[in-house]
Amino acid sequence: MEVIPGRPDLNAETMLEQIAAAREAQAQIVAFPEMAVPGYLLGDTWEQNAFLRDCEYFGSRIVAASDGICVVFGNVGVDWERRGADGRVRKYNAFFAALDGRLHGDDNFPYPFRIKTLHPNYREFDDTRHFCSLPKLALELDTRVESLLQPVRLKLGDETLSLGCILCEDGWHEDYSVDPVQILHRNGPLDLVINLSSSPFTLGKNNKRNRVFSREAADIATPLIYVNNVGLQNNGKTIFTFDGLSTVYDRAGNIVDCCPAFESCLRLVDLDLEQGGQNLAPLAAADDAGIDSIYRVLRYGTERFLAQTGIERVVIGISGGIDSAVAAALYGQVLDPGKLLLANLPSVYNSDTTKGLARELAANLGCLYTEVPIQAAVDLTVEQLSTAAIVDQQSGAETTLELSTAVIENIQARDRSARVLAGLAAAFGGGFTCNANKSELTVGYSTLYGDQSGFLAAIADLWKHQVYALGRYLNEKVYPVPVIPERIFEIVPSAELSAAQSVDEDRGDPLIYPYHDYLFRAFMERWDKATPEDILQWYADGELETRLGCEAGLTAQLFPGPPEFIADLERWWNLYSGLAVAKRIQAPPVLAVSRRAFGFDHREAQNRSHYSAAYRRLKAGLLGADPA
Amino acid sequence: MEVIPGRPDLNAETMLEQIAAAREAQAQIVAFPEMAVPGYLLGDTWEQNAFLRDCEYFGSRIVAASDGICVVFGNVGVDWERRGADGRVRKYNAFFAALDGRLHGDDNFPYPFRIKTLHPNYREFDDTRHFCSLPKLALELDTRVESLLQPVRLKLGDETLSLGCILCEDGWHEDYSVDPVQILHRNGPLDLVINLSSSPFTLGKNNKRNRVFSREAADIATPLIYVNNVGLQNNGKTIFTFDGLSTVYDRAGNIVDCCPAFESCLRLVDLDLEQGGQNLAPLAAADDAGIDSIYRVLRYGTERFLAQTGIERVVIGISGGIDSAVAAALYGQVLDPGKLLLANLPSVYNSDTTKGLARELAANLGCLYTEVPIQAAVDLTVEQLSTAAIVDQQSGAETTLELSTAVIENIQARDRSARVLAGLAAAFGGGFTCNANKSELTVGYSTLYGDQSGFLAAIADLWKHQVYALGRYLNEKVYPVPVIPERIFEIVPSAELSAAQSVDEDRGDPLIYPYHDYLFRAFMERWDKATPEDILQWYADGELETRLGCEAGLTAQLFPGPPEFIADLERWWNLYSGLAVAKRIQAPPVLAVSRRAFGFDHREAQNRSHYSAAYRRLKAGLLGADPA
Repeated sequence: MEVIPGRPDLNAETMLEQIAAAREAQAQIVAFPEMAVPGYLLGDTWEQNAFLRDCEYFGSRIVAASDGICVVFGNVGVDWERRGADGRVRKYNAFFAALDGRLHGDDNFPYPFRIKTLHPNYREFDDTRHFCSLPKLALELDTRVESLLQPVRLKLGDETLSLGCILCEDGWHEDYSVDPVQILHRNGPLDLVINLSSSPFTLGKNNKRNRVFSREAADIATPLIYVNNVGLQNNGKTIFTFDGLSTVYDRAGNIVDCCPAFESCLRLVDLDLEQGGQNLAPLAAADDAGIDSIYRVLRYGTERFLAQTGIERVVIGISGGIDSAVAAALYGQVLDPGKLLLANLPSVYNSDTTKGLARELAANLGCLYTEVPIQAAVDLTVEQLSTAAIVDQQSGAETTLELSTAVIENIQARDRSARVLAGLAAAFGGGFTCNANKSELTVGYSTLYGDQSGFLAAIADLWKHQVYALGRYLNEKVYPVPVIPERIFEIVPSAELSAAQSVDEDRGDPLIYPYHDYLFRAFMERWDKATPEDILQWYADGELETRLGCEAGLTAQLFPGPPEFIADLERWWNLYSGLAVAKRIQAPPVLAVSRRAFGFDHREAQNRSHYSAAYRRLKAGLLGADPA
Repeated sequence: MEVIPGRPDLNAETMLEQIAAAREAQAQIVAFPEMAVPGYLLGDTWEQNAFLRDCEYFGSRIVAASDGICVVFGNVGVDWERRGADGRVRKYNAFFAALDGRLHGDDNFPYPFRIKTLHPNYREFDDTRHFCSLPKLALELDTRVESLLQPVRLKLGDETLSLGCILCEDGWHEDYSVDPVQILHRNGPLDLVINLSSSPFTLGKNNKRNRVFSREAADIATPLIYVNNVGLQNNGKTIFTFDGLSTVYDRAGNIVDCCPAFESCLRLVDLDLEQGGQNLAPLAAADDAGIDSIYRVLRYGTERFLAQTGIERVVIGISGGIDSAVAAALYGQVLDPGKLLLANLPSVYNSDTTKGLARELAANLGCLYTEVPIQAAVDLTVEQLSTAAIVDQQSGAETTLELSTAVIENIQARDRSARVLAGLAAAFGGGFTCNANKSELTVGYSTLYGDQSGFLAAIADLWKHQVYALGRYLNEKVYPVPVIPERIFEIVPSAELSAAQSVDEDRGDPLIYPYHDYLFRAFMERWDKATPEDILQWYADGELETRLGCEAGLTAQLFPGPPEFIADLERWWNLYSGLAVAKRIQAPPVLAVSRRAFGFDHREAQNRSHYSAAYRRLKAGLLGADPA
């Protein structure tokens, strides 16, 4: 099901409809995802007691609807008598099993629901902030996790079903000292394990899910049903899609059924538990790590984000470059052409080449298009700021300010976004997009209140080379005929903010994407994050390109020697860990695709850049100097 | 000491100097705060193994410097052989006790350091994300917390000191099922308890600290030393000051010594442990909950933020209203007048009254001042946007857009900030401030890329009435003569963005601060957050004003009856939980003062507004209608 975060009323309505449909279809069990009633990523809404009462109320309506059918679902479990470690009312991330109008499972557990054992607290997850885990409850009750993790026994017809009830991370025990599934198995025998999840999409995660749950089912020779929601949830700075892909594994670990990705559906599965689900034929798992997955998640996420925020009309500033072209082609798949307005905003530095490409793109998409030149406004701003009298209120002395090229470049960028696009979007009755990519966002190669602005940064979790790949995919697989002009793929990426930047003369961005994309990815996406110390060590050891995954021989080609290599490394590290953090604090929400997206997924502080003592020694060695 | 977040090199340097000075002064023990080496609020820097190695390296230098003096300090404790629940290397928030060049305490504990038992995970705290707690270690080692919490025994001269080593939250056990100090006491006897903390300032927190630690010392009849750092640390969206105020309690719970607030100092205390510290005379605790504390923290925080980010020159847009006037007077205390540029940016809607007040304020502050009218640029924008041809690329049809009053109001706000202030600041070589207050930020009563912009929102954790109080305090207690013109306190708060808003005709903001300040505070700052359900129940029960803490009789005066009251409530709740969230995602960092500041302290998701079923029933009852 699609779970609407923070709306127990709407989610309960969906669930009641699906329960009725399941009963109609003579299902014995109907399963809904983790936190199906409240939603999962809600920030600190959990601190509102009225919200908790509302979740309980709608939860009780689900229970009341379980006449003759077993309904398992995720909801917040509240113990109004106990406190959490924050002094607020005690909350659990809980698994409810209802049948014949009442909850089951309190015969061998302190509550009429089961609670989550393993609480993820990495990436976007924040379970420990709000919920009490099974180990904490065990400590408090002076008992052991092993004695609390018991199956729920349900009388279904003439049979008693022994059900292993787990929630999401409970199935991903690898890095924990407790393995809930094995404990349940030892406390069994189990007929079936159900894992209720609310698990955001990450590129390649479903492949891993299938490996993990397939092995888990096989290890205990018990069929396992993995239930995940679809929809869009967010933590403010980072927007997550949920791909669903609820899957049934038989006792041998074969996939025997699977819901489609990103679609709400009531799936009927005729699982023979006596045969451990082996009455059903094994299916092959779909791969989810390619550019088609990236396109699918961006399209789904963008569409759901617009629906959730109520934005119906979108303005995109198109420069004639690849990022805005890909953004335009993406939104072209989500919106009616009459609700998509592309705007080209040229200054004297924009070439006829890119202006022509922008027009061509708009014509190919068949949407609305306008041109709003910015030169007059930029000239007015430069004139005003450079002639404004700055008066010393003590001496009465007057001076004026000088505007450098860099200052004037940023004036242009802000003029485009904060003056024109924001104004156009407001008049058009919608929002305007941020077309920044991840490479730019990593080092703040964008202007605050300028091209970094917008209501959503839909492609900001893609490295530049992925943006190009997505452009190709849109042209070749999505649109019947290519919409992004070929020349846009060929010109050098350039901001065109001064005479020094010219696509016609191949003078573009200071970023060398075939190298920096991979360097920045090592800063950001490696599980053990790379820092200058690691990078420099790999460089010294001649294994940098292998470690980064970029083209072999690239660094030798780009940097004559260690001084140039180090200067480049420190330039970008200083930006990544310095000014770019300040910019990201004010960046739009990012739609997450990768294993690590900027925002709440990757928490950061605006601190000074740091180089370790080991880095300084290594650097001094390579430069033949004393450590600084 | 002042801890510089993320800079073990600089922190170790400070510590080595202070160890030398302490030895010189013949101290037996020198104590540094929790996480004194790495800093505490570092986002996900903990995922960089090179950073961890650097912390270990500088930690080892501190240990090596402990010849003849016991050095206790906080640092990250790393176990490279074990994993955390996120699969990364195992990290502890750890207490190190060094003497004569080596660490002590591994005779009765698995590590040569002590680890934190209670991990806060509310507000800005994120300990559980990165560090393994003592209860988790106990679970893994299949032992009990009670057997792991042992004193560290140190041979100081001829005496053996039995030291209770705890970290910050360990002393705030009230809401946990474990009380580390009591367990240590039972495992004692203890001569002394040292609590190493890194505890951010919150208005009134030091009063509570003294109550908690005084009782704790008295309960176990043992002197207790509370060691806290000073400085500024942040989590990106929220900036925290650390007030230090390291305090010594004797065994009766009396305060017998205390460091000054917000000052780094090496304090020598002659604590006679045989007398349980009662050789020293009790002192009175300073109150920290008043407007003087607010001023002190804002001044300290602003000054340290500028120093940390390297911003040396500041531009403030001053409207002639109270918020920007208070911001200007605050920065006037932090910066040389030649580095502070005030700018008045009038349109046709700005009155002579406010323009005159802006000039007067600048003259009083004796800083730099300029006037940059925005009308020409706004007219140009309105002209460009309302005449730009919007061309349908399928039919070739051309239309134009209409600009409503609201759209033109926002154009002005963005023109001021993103065009003029950002340009002025760049040319001036500095940043420009965001002068938003908490009342505005709560409901998004400000324009994105307009008056919501800036490098820091220094007064955004103050409700409007606190801004007025701070203005009074600046005039009366900080400056020798008042700098904020009296008339600024008297005029009605107004954005002056249209003819409908006029200070001369008393037509101003839609916010009725004497009521909405308190309503919004109930949404935001109550530990159990208030929602429309609570508010409406209190209104129905006639106890709203008492609950909110606002003036009695106010709601009857403002709202003729339930329909008007409910319309107002829903209007602001929709904004607070809707559009304002979208704006806050892109807001500047907020300097925290209160028990709940926007940003990382108050996590939120951009979801649809929600009204509970109980609210809808209550509303229907009050309106005599069916529940919607």
